Amino acid sequence: MPSSTSYKLTYFDLRYLGEGSRQVLIYAGQKFEDNRINRELWESQLKSKSKYGKLPILEVDGKHTLYESAAISRLLARRHGLTGADEFKAALADEIVDHHRDVMTAFSGWLFVKVGLKPGDEAQVYKEIAQPTADAQFPVYVKLLKTSGTGYLVGKKVTWADLWVADYLTTLIRHGSKLFDKYPELVQFVDRIHSLPQLKDHIKNRPDNAA
Amino acid sequence: MPSSTSYKLTYFDLRYLGEGSRQVLIYAGQKFEDNRINRELWESQLKSKSKYGKLPILEVDGKHTLYESAAISRLLARRHGLTGADEFKAALADEIVDHHRDVMTAFSGWLFVKVGLKPGDEAQVYKEIAQPTADAQFPVYVKLLKTSGTGYLVGKKVTWADLWVADYLTTLIRHGSKLFDKYPELVQFVDRIHSLPQLKDHIKNRPDNAA
Repeated sequence: MPSSTSYKLTYFDLRYLGEGSRQVLIYAGQKFEDNRINRELWESQLKSKSKYGKLPILEVDGKHTLYESAAISRLLARRHGLTGADEFKAALADEIVDHHRDVMTAFSGWLFVKVGLKPGDEAQVYKEIAQPTADAQFPVYVKLLKTSGTGYLVGKKVTWADLWVADYLTTLIRHGSKLFDKYPELVQFVDRIHSLPQLKDHIKNRPDNAA
Repeated sequence: MPSSTSYKLTYFDLRYLGEGSRQVLIYAGQKFEDNRINRELWESQLKSKSKYGKLPILEVDGKHTLYESAAISRLLARRHGLTGADEFKAALADEIVDHHRDVMTAFSGWLFVKVGLKPGDEAQVYKEIAQPTADAQFPVYVKLLKTSGTGYLVGKKVTWADLWVADYLTTLIRHGSKLFDKYPELVQFVDRIHSLPQLKDHIKNRPDNAA
């Protein structure tokens, strides 16, 4: 891909659904405009003009506008060599991200309370949502890593699925580190991905967002 | 793609998350094993062995096993020329399906009651969920069709996004045809897709599933 491509990624000042795409670009050494907007601007001016009423939004060369976080990340990953080595590995990365989105949704019943986006009794939703979701889903990620045997989720190389999963696990570790007591492999996985030479400066210097 | 590829698609005897993949294969003239299983077999024997505990599952040549409905459809669409003409059209199809999955989730609060999968007051969830979701989301599909100007959602050719959206709109029309009173373009869209020579026999002869 020409490094002269101009990318503008618009999202909130959060990691959540934007950071996976940011990290694909950063891993690829690709410059981009990291357009972080606040909720007031989004609600008052931008949301009604947005195609689906959702962020993030990617603009490419001022000509193409793309919506939906996974679709954006997949396009960037394809352009920059992060989809996996063949069609089945690309499909496996797709599969993992799709499942991971469901896991994110499952945890949100706890996490949104924990970070103050929703009201609720944090201890109760931790017990009713976070703990059972971790115990049901973390073994799935452990098994994916065991099956690949490479330290990455898909094949022998890092893919956008690693970037998505490692980022969200960072959030879970930050807010519920005890969830990982039985799953040290997942904490090691996050460290491995975030120590990659292409990413480690970004991880150190990025805004200290709660999610 | 070699027509000697062997595909086996395992799903419930429903359209819901399996029919989009079936129709990609049917549109492409590709033979496949349409393995429809019942819930009792799934719950008692297969679910615990499934990677994510979900259907559908695609097996390719008895060697590759793939999970997650959209990832399966995307792989098949890519192999059989239904992803759109270039990388941005492929990303637009991805974007539409991702958004559409959210719309399906939104309608499910009504639809699952309507088809008897969940208890509830159907008239009430129709008013509280189905009608407002239709009024919020149907204009999005109308605008996509208007923007393409071709009768398809993406560019000048049918894509897997058309197959996914037309199938689910069929379900909505069947159970809540009044939702479409202000959106005749969407009923026409379904008719257009389901009248394609590659699909029309399948549409006529397939099992008469409620969803």
